[in-house]
Amino acid sequence: MRLNFLSAVALAAAIAVSSVAAAADGLPSWKDGKTKQTIVQFVKQVTTNGGPKYVRPAERIAVFDNDGTLWAEQPMYFQAAFVLDRVKALAPKYPEWKDQEPFKSVLTGDMGGVNAAGMKGLLELVGATHGGMTSDEFDQIARNWLAMARHPRFNRPYTDLVYQPMIELLAFLRANGFKTYIVSGGGVEFIRAFSEKVYGVPPEQVVGSSIKTKYEVRDGRPVIARLPEIDFIDDMAGKPVGIQKFIGRRPLMAFGNSDGDFEMLEWTTSGPGPRFGLIVHHDDAVREWAYDRESHAGRLKRGLDEGPQRGWVIASMKSDWRRVFPFEK
Amino acid sequence: MRLNFLSAVALAAAIAVSSVAAAADGLPSWKDGKTKQTIVQFVKQVTTNGGPKYVRPAERIAVFDNDGTLWAEQPMYFQAAFVLDRVKALAPKYPEWKDQEPFKSVLTGDMGGVNAAGMKGLLELVGATHGGMTSDEFDQIARNWLAMARHPRFNRPYTDLVYQPMIELLAFLRANGFKTYIVSGGGVEFIRAFSEKVYGVPPEQVVGSSIKTKYEVRDGRPVIARLPEIDFIDDMAGKPVGIQKFIGRRPLMAFGNSDGDFEMLEWTTSGPGPRFGLIVHHDDAVREWAYDRESHAGRLKRGLDEGPQRGWVIASMKSDWRRVFPFEK
Repeated sequence: MRLNFLSAVALAAAIAVSSVAAAADGLPSWKDGKTKQTIVQFVKQVTTNGGPKYVRPAERIAVFDNDGTLWAEQPMYFQAAFVLDRVKALAPKYPEWKDQEPFKSVLTGDMGGVNAAGMKGLLELVGATHGGMTSDEFDQIARNWLAMARHPRFNRPYTDLVYQPMIELLAFLRANGFKTYIVSGGGVEFIRAFSEKVYGVPPEQVVGSSIKTKYEVRDGRPVIARLPEIDFIDDMAGKPVGIQKFIGRRPLMAFGNSDGDFEMLEWTTSGPGPRFGLIVHHDDAVREWAYDRESHAGRLKRGLDEGPQRGWVIASMKSDWRRVFPFEK
Repeated sequence: MRLNFLSAVALAAAIAVSSVAAAADGLPSWKDGKTKQTIVQFVKQVTTNGGPKYVRPAERIAVFDNDGTLWAEQPMYFQAAFVLDRVKALAPKYPEWKDQEPFKSVLTGDMGGVNAAGMKGLLELVGATHGGMTSDEFDQIARNWLAMARHPRFNRPYTDLVYQPMIELLAFLRANGFKTYIVSGGGVEFIRAFSEKVYGVPPEQVVGSSIKTKYEVRDGRPVIARLPEIDFIDDMAGKPVGIQKFIGRRPLMAFGNSDGDFEMLEWTTSGPGPRFGLIVHHDDAVREWAYDRESHAGRLKRGLDEGPQRGWVIASMKSDWRRVFPFEK
């Protein structure tokens, strides 16, 4: 039985490998040009059995940042919008918030005041909105918000603001034997609430920031209780740490968009053998947003300065993408 | 291309599902009887498409404890033997250790003294032997030890002391669309050094205890530096926490052998829908060891008392296993 199964898997793999050329058709939202060609060429090299750059399927790990790489991150990180909405929803239960920062600023819509509360204020907001419930309850809260909330510019669910070319790329890599991971500074359980449906990335392939949790049996019912305390920040130098902790091997390919992804791309592309790094450059103010060196969210400076000399591909949203969002004609 | 690939995978899955009956032949080291029948029957139910207990492949997560469940844990945890050997190997570089506990007791072979140093002593030993190097260096140290060290009773590499019936079970589950995970109180990087080769479980499917790490660029070379400080203990109530953190969904099946696995089995089997829990009972003093309620390592008391009424299967090494180790005739 096992042999039958493995033979069929081998057949599947053979079909995948033999049709890499045709697979370029799996990337219709990427314009024909150097960027697309570089991606397809790399995948062809590492999947060509017997070739000098062949990599066995088990080692084919591709990691993707989420905010600004797989979906948009303007006018603010989508998870920040979730936090603000949750504070408003919870406020009736916490009347003291109307006199207490950073909650007061959130409730009065004073974003300057929210920012002024700094990291301490941010942690308080995360603790109040992401802690104090079970893992199952949080999952449901996040799913409900994702179903109801609308993006202010496009008036659509936030999950509509994923990048069509990246969705195609995820599928293209999986079809070529890659395991695709999300490695995000965002909260792991927030991303897990939509990653399987939207990206085809299952919960066990999401690495992200987390809060502490505790296993408890409440009235005979076991739960994972979420505590209002940060456990791990999966950003900057935390990304390679998260990759080693959760995945345990160095990726073959890494995709990011900001300097928060610099160390992830550095760690990935400094490994032995063929490696690939790509930065999505937000340079399309018409279809999406244009920002890089001076942006508060998704700042990209070091990556632009050092990326090319490190061999990283800079993908232009404006020039390399035929379509940005799935809902575009 | 993607459709071709997916079709072939579907074909492979169909072959797997349609031959579950034949797959019982994939478990030759399990004696025919109630235990084996219960396992095979459960797998058949959750993989029968259209059946009342069908579970889609993405949800088929099976978690396995390591020490005492997949390989032996006597006369001491194998990773403890690694720690003792490492202290001896490192001692020439740390002459002060000969007057300093718990190192002094390790170097003089005084196991009573090592135990007397308690948790504080243990953490010092772990810090000294598992910290202070890069992740790549630790991986090499662990691999070298696994290649050279010999088990005192069987005079074989420790990786020979895996349980043949469990190796078959891992393969059987994978052939039926399960993702097999290790969820161990042992160190995650120690297990990753052999899990792929020995169990067919890739590094990204190992959850374990960990120490803190830090990403650094040393003379232009990025490394993950291992710090002499505990990050996470994946044991007892830590196991469901680790499962949620790393896997992000509740397993369908859980396998353990000691009360350190109780919460993992409780969390798994209290989920909705079909769930399965099994405890390996060490009751074979001839081929392996016999121990349970009073053992210092792998104590099993609550699991024996409460397991059966919770519907968990108690597998007897003596009665249910035709063969224990792969090297037996």
